Amino acid sequence: MLIIGELLNSSRSAIRALLEAEDKAALQEIAQAQEAAGAQYLDVNCGVFIEDEAERLCWLVDVVQEVSSLPLCLDSPNMVALKAALPLLKNGQPLINSISAEHDRYEQVLPLVLEHKTKVIALAMDDSGIPDTAEARVAVAGRLWDDLRLAGVAKEDIYLDLLVQPLANTAGGVLPLLEAARQLCEAKAGIQLIGGLSNVSYGLPNRALLNRYFLIQAIAAGIDSFILNPLDKKLMGAYYAARALVGRDKYCAAYLKAHRKGYYGN
Amino acid sequence: MLIIGELLNSSRSAIRALLEAEDKAALQEIAQAQEAAGAQYLDVNCGVFIEDEAERLCWLVDVVQEVSSLPLCLDSPNMVALKAALPLLKNGQPLINSISAEHDRYEQVLPLVLEHKTKVIALAMDDSGIPDTAEARVAVAGRLWDDLRLAGVAKEDIYLDLLVQPLANTAGGVLPLLEAARQLCEAKAGIQLIGGLSNVSYGLPNRALLNRYFLIQAIAAGIDSFILNPLDKKLMGAYYAARALVGRDKYCAAYLKAHRKGYYGN
Repeated sequence: MLIIGELLNSSRSAIRALLEAEDKAALQEIAQAQEAAGAQYLDVNCGVFIEDEAERLCWLVDVVQEVSSLPLCLDSPNMVALKAALPLLKNGQPLINSISAEHDRYEQVLPLVLEHKTKVIALAMDDSGIPDTAEARVAVAGRLWDDLRLAGVAKEDIYLDLLVQPLANTAGGVLPLLEAARQLCEAKAGIQLIGGLSNVSYGLPNRALLNRYFLIQAIAAGIDSFILNPLDKKLMGAYYAARALVGRDKYCAAYLKAHRKGYYGN
Repeated sequence: MLIIGELLNSSRSAIRALLEAEDKAALQEIAQAQEAAGAQYLDVNCGVFIEDEAERLCWLVDVVQEVSSLPLCLDSPNMVALKAALPLLKNGQPLINSISAEHDRYEQVLPLVLEHKTKVIALAMDDSGIPDTAEARVAVAGRLWDDLRLAGVAKEDIYLDLLVQPLANTAGGVLPLLEAARQLCEAKAGIQLIGGLSNVSYGLPNRALLNRYFLIQAIAAGIDSFILNPLDKKLMGAYYAARALVGRDKYCAAYLKAHRKGYYGN
């Protein structure tokens, strides 16, 4: 299980503004708040700055590391940015977000994973796009996992993302994804699945509610790591309650602790 | 899918008091509120009145039918009470709550189901109690469903209840129940599964949250009918959102309607 705090992402307009203003204090406060709320990694993304992403990402890495001891999740498809930022990381094992089964991306990112002994989020898609049936998801994800293992990446360093699609666009909703998750957990001992949440609710009202309820279904299907907003107490409540429900929280100990500590809202 | 309003149950102390006081107006208000909130059946239970359950149940049936056109769900293991109340029902097809695979109960209730052409909730337990593994649940539930079908009860009149147990007492939490639900849906075309919610959270803090999140996982596993409190807007929100998530709500139409009508809370 892994909770990655998602907030320091330049695609959020508030964060973009803070990055443009180089508002170090405000960004550090967000980093610290996510750590206090239970995040285990912090995602950092400067992808909207096309001209100088690498420079800005390095700046953000330094800013965050001044106040947080959490390891970072470098969120970029840009090789220049990843290569510049990786040597700066000093808190535990870095995480690269992300590799995929797309040929060029795979060939470019894999050497960085191996050289820096990072963890890596692996997107279950290849050059023909995101698979839509359960079978196709299992095939693409399983092959990607096998390839990474053969290349020398340890099981515990791979987080497979089955890439949830907007509900509005899909027949069967998230069932094919949940079914694929269950099949992968059964077929591959030690596999770790990770989920992003917000795509699922794209275009629908009350998105936070749909995202939260998707997380609850995802946990029952074996997805146990998430990139999310740890400051959303309702979402964190869903995380702890759902893990207790499916027996992944012995004696409900984490649920009870989260309850006492006020980690969650109803 | 079926939503049964659970509030008119004498095991709730407030309802018991209203029944003792024969407070017709207050009981009718609760019946109407559940109908307005989207309930399709109303459960009626006078089980705590051991001396005169039959008489009280008949009185309650009349009281509710004066103000609601919903069909009723007769909630009693008492043959005398069921036999007395069944002939009074006048709104659509009655529902008996419940039969089980326990020998005596099965033999007693089945003739009533057949004679009055009722729907029936069938509890997946036999004389050795409630099964605890997924396999045992599938076996007991599947056999009960087959027996009822062979006896002449139509598929669409049977609602199988897999009987959730308190989390605190179970290894694996609700996973065996969810797994059994999925297997039954796959094995028996047209099977209908129903869930009660509140047992799951017995002895834990924030029970409403655990009940709600269990409902969300249950829906993903194919359980599509529930006995619940339809006045709990968060719970109803969970119901509509979860069905949309798993593709059982075409174009998310019911979710969008519930959103517009204010059927749910976040």
